[in-house]
Order: sequence, then C-alpha cells, then structure tokens
Amino acid sequence: MGSIMYLCFDIGGTHIKGGVLDEQGKIQAKREVDTNLHGGPQGIARQLKEMEGEFMRENPAWGQEVKGVGIGVPGFTEKGWVWEAVNLGWKNEDFLEIMKSVFPFPIFILNDANAAALGELWLGSGQGIKDFICVTLGTGIGAGVVINSAIHIGKYGMAGEIGHFQCGTEKGYLCHCGNRGCLETLSSATAIASRAKEEEKKGMSPELSRILREKGNLKSRDVINVARKGDPVAIRVLEEAGAILGRALGNIFLVFAPDKILLGGGVSKAGPLLLHSVREGFKEIVPRQMKKEQVIFLAKLGNDAGMIGLAKYVKMNLGNEGEKNA
Amino acid sequence: MGSIMYLCFDIGGTHIKGGVLDEQGKIQAKREVDTNLHGGPQGIARQLKEMEGEFMRENPAWGQEVKGVGIGVPGFTEKGWVWEAVNLGWKNEDFLEIMKSVFPFPIFILNDANAAALGELWLGSGQGIKDFICVTLGTGIGAGVVINSAIHIGKYGMAGEIGHFQCGTEKGYLCHCGNRGCLETLSSATAIASRAKEEEKKGMSPELSRILREKGNLKSRDVINVARKGDPVAIRVLEEAGAILGRALGNIFLVFAPDKILLGGGVSKAGPLLLHSVREGFKEIVPRQMKKEQVIFLAKLGNDAGMIGLAKYVKMNLGNEGEKNA
Repeated sequence: MGSIMYLCFDIGGTHIKGGVLDEQGKIQAKREVDTNLHGGPQGIARQLKEMEGEFMRENPAWGQEVKGVGIGVPGFTEKGWVWEAVNLGWKNEDFLEIMKSVFPFPIFILNDANAAALGELWLGSGQGIKDFICVTLGTGIGAGVVINSAIHIGKYGMAGEIGHFQCGTEKGYLCHCGNRGCLETLSSATAIASRAKEEEKKGMSPELSRILREKGNLKSRDVINVARKGDPVAIRVLEEAGAILGRALGNIFLVFAPDKILLGGGVSKAGPLLLHSVREGFKEIVPRQMKKEQVIFLAKLGNDAGMIGLAKYVKMNLGNEGEKNA
Repeated sequence: MGSIMYLCFDIGGTHIKGGVLDEQGKIQAKREVDTNLHGGPQGIARQLKEMEGEFMRENPAWGQEVKGVGIGVPGFTEKGWVWEAVNLGWKNEDFLEIMKSVFPFPIFILNDANAAALGELWLGSGQGIKDFICVTLGTGIGAGVVINSAIHIGKYGMAGEIGHFQCGTEKGYLCHCGNRGCLETLSSATAIASRAKEEEKKGMSPELSRILREKGNLKSRDVINVARKGDPVAIRVLEEAGAILGRALGNIFLVFAPDKILLGGGVSKAGPLLLHSVREGFKEIVPRQMKKEQVIFLAKLGNDAGMIGLAKYVKMNLGNEGEKNA
C-alpha cells in the first residue's frame, strides 16, 4: 500500500521544472533542465522522459506509486492540443498524443500560468479567494484566471494571455507574436534584462557593468540583486517595468474586477522593490474607491506553483472520471 | 387572475427609459424622459415615480399586476448600493433605500450594462452563449460580463467598467473620472459627436456643417446618418472610434477569452459602418488563430436590452427567495 504520487513537468521558455509530488501537493523530489528549444515537442518529450528516468533511479518505488502525469505548457492549450506556444516555437501540436507514446500513465496538460494559478488556489495565496488572477512574470508573461474558485481557460485556452496585452501600439520592442508594445516586451524577465543592458551602456551603473563584463550577460536576477543593493539604475529599470505592469493590471481589473491579483514567477522575487511600483501604476487606472484598496500581492509558492497546480490538476481529473484535459 | 408584470427603469446619462414588461420579457408599454442630472438620486427617484404614475393611468390594471421593480444604474452598484455613478454625479448612495420609500414593490437594482447583457443572454444575441461580453456604446461605455451563463459583477460591481479602459495615457480628452485616454472619451456617442464637431471646423463636410448650423448641435446619431449617406468625414470619425474600440476589445479578449463580444447601445446603430472597423482593430491585437474567427457581433435587442434584462432580473429574484440585490 504505497502512496499516490504525481509526476509534474512545468515547461517554461528557459527551463523545464520537473517534480514528484504527493497527493497533498508536497514535493518529494525536483529537478530542472534547460528547455530544448530546437527539437520541437518531440525534443521536449525526450527531455521529460529523461527526467522521469532520473526520478525513477532516485527512488524505484515511484515506478509503482506514480498514478498520473501533469504537464504545464507555455501557450494556448485545450484538451491536450497546443494551438500555439510562441516562446517554444510550436503551432498546432497534438502534444497529448506525443506524450502518450512516452509515458504509460494518464496525462493531463494545462497552460503553465493556469497551473500556477491552480497551485496558488490550492495551497498558496489564492486559498479561499473566489475571483483572482495569478500573473507569472518569467521569460514571458502569462496569467491564470480563477473565477468562482475554478480555472477559467476561455476560448482556445486563451484566457489570461496578458503577455500580449498592448501597452502602447506605436512604439516598443517587437514581440515574438509580431506586434509591438506587448506587455511581455516591457515587464517580463527578458524585458528587464534587455532594458538593463541598454541602461548599462550609459555607464552610470558600475555594478551592472561589472557583472556584464564578468559573466558576459545580464539576467533579470542580476538586475534584482543589484537593485537590492541600492543601485539607482537597476532600481529604475525595475520600477519602470513595474509601473507598466501595474497600469496593465489596472485595465485588466476593469474587465472582470477580481478580488485579488497575485504576482508570481522569477521577476516577483524582486519583492517590495517591484510591488510598490506595480501598485502605484495600478492606482493610476482603477476607479477612485479602488485606490485605497490593496488587491495586488505576491504569490506564495514561487517557482513551485506550477508543479503544485499540476499535481492538483492530475488529482482532480483522476478523482473524477479518469482522463480529461481542459 | 391577472398577468404578472414588472416595472423596469433603465437610467442612462442622458435618458431614462421606463417600461412595463410581462414575464416573457415582452414590453407592454414604454416611455422615455431626459435624465434629471441636478437633483441627485432623490430627483431621479421622483422621475421614476412620475413615470410609474403615467403607466398606471395608461392601464390601471397594472396596479395589481406589477410584482416588482427593476432599476438599471450607470455606475458601480452592489446590493442596491451605488458606489459611484460618474455620469450621474453620484457617490456612495443607498439608492435601494431611497427607492423603497417611493415604490411599494420589491425593488432590484443592477448596473445598466449588466442589465443589457442579461437581456441579450435571455432573449437576444447572447442566448446559449457561455461566456460573452456585451458592450453598451452610449453617453459612456459600459459592459456586462457573462461567465458560465451568469452575470459576473466582480468587486464593487466593477466588472465590465471598460469605459475607463486606457487607450493611451498621455494624450486624449479628460474623462469625468479624472484620467485621460479612457475608452469612453474616444469611442462613446459623446466622443463621436465631439470628434465630428472638431472635424466639421475644417469645413470639409457640408452636410455636418448644415446640421450644426440648423440644429445648433451635432449628435452621434447625426454623424451616423451623414456617414450612411457616404460623407467621408463622418465615415472617418466612426471608423476611428471603431478601430480604437476594436483594439481595446482585443486587449479585453486576452483577459478572459469570451466566446462572443456583442455591441449594443446607440452607437451600435451605425451597424456595418462601425462593425468593420471594430473587427479590424480587434484583429490587430488578438493571437493569430483568432484573426480568422468572428467573435464581434451586433447585439439584437437595441435600446430595449436593459429593460428586458431588468425584467429577467426581477423575475429571477422573485422566483428564488424574494428580495436580493446582486
């Protein structure tokens, strides 16, 4: 009478996080690899298979205990079909079918941001909240929309695709999607790193220049670390990204007026440095009586939110009527 | 054994529409008066009472048959309380309490755009649609959000308050709400009339100039009529308002990805002239596979949508457990 375990993979544009989780959502083991962006869905399927092999070598008992697999995909997905995953370069892929040939378990596929929102709803900052949106600030920006305490996926699974929310159509960086001015070109980890590199050129931040010289690159986590030490250039880059995000969230609030907005993903690790400017941007947009209210908070589960939500998703689906993909 | 009737009032920023509707949502009588913007909620309460008196004189049997009153308010409203109705100049009004002293019937208060959406859901273009948004293009712009075939009112009844959606924060007309660049300063009936007056000054539209000279004013319906006759200035004004609306709707789509977006209210009478540019603006924003799909349609019930939705709202509430305001 072994425990019941779920194998969960959260595929991001940069890393794949994998974990073995129990029925309570506790992570028993986890691993991370760089996302193979060149092998298409088959290439990623092989990576997931390899990660599974490593977990099984770590604890052979899991071979019997794993009852289902949850996979989070950064793109529009419905019923295991991926309409488009811009940051992976996928279009119209029957990913469920591909994964079925790899794993002998029931497989459930969910958009990555929806998975994170489901995780926060189950065990994080969304517990007991009826309507909320959980924003994942990573390589791109996505969001999971919870309405009446359930994930709302929308047409083609496109609900919460706020990475492509327009924050000014005429100017701004070109997005993968073909438009300019998309939110994820302005407030994602990628955007923060790009802006910091632009600002570094002006020579006003010895610390950013040092990191760039030593590592040959600047990442958003470097910008956050440098900002924490009080570097005004890094602080300004974060604040600008935060203010743009806050204004976008103000507009988003007007659409379905959620009770809370949670910020998760790598960029949210900036904590108060980011949160303050997001809240200020938000207040510029929302109606008067919302200006005194606090609705924007940091998500609790950090980078594990997706895996935890996937475990819940597998559990929900196995508990009901067997295999069903949203 | 008389019929069951509902007394419905749809309060707008310009007109109040009143009607006696039966249980099937059929309008038995209707009247319209100009909104008294100077007497506060008490002034409007008196107007509703006067309209009721006229209905009762028209058919005294209604005195026995009317079982409830539905009132649509253009502002944030929850449980009969009006947080704010910018176009009426109201703030924190216990409108339900005021109305209780006026009418001896159960009274139900709903946001006007939610009422219109509920009307379309019951008897209009929203029948059988799970998730949709019904946009009312009038003096201001509001929307009713339907999720899982039910009105979603959101925090403080603010869901669908897309009139204050930002379409560019730096420029644009000043809105009642204090911001610049709000959608309703760009695509409402008021905005279309203002833009037409600005354009008229350039002297390129003899028809708009003639109407302005003769009537001393230009209204959005004049712009629509002149555009229908092929006037390029009026057409351009409508197309610009439509394209801005379409782009805003594209952003709104990304939030909860509804199955349909319905356009109602006075400006929607422009029909295909408006619809085409709205759809083009929408396509600029939404993900690729949405570009081939048609989700934006004209609402069916026109100016009666609000009253019909209010009848449904009264019916729903009386049918359940007596008095309950959303």
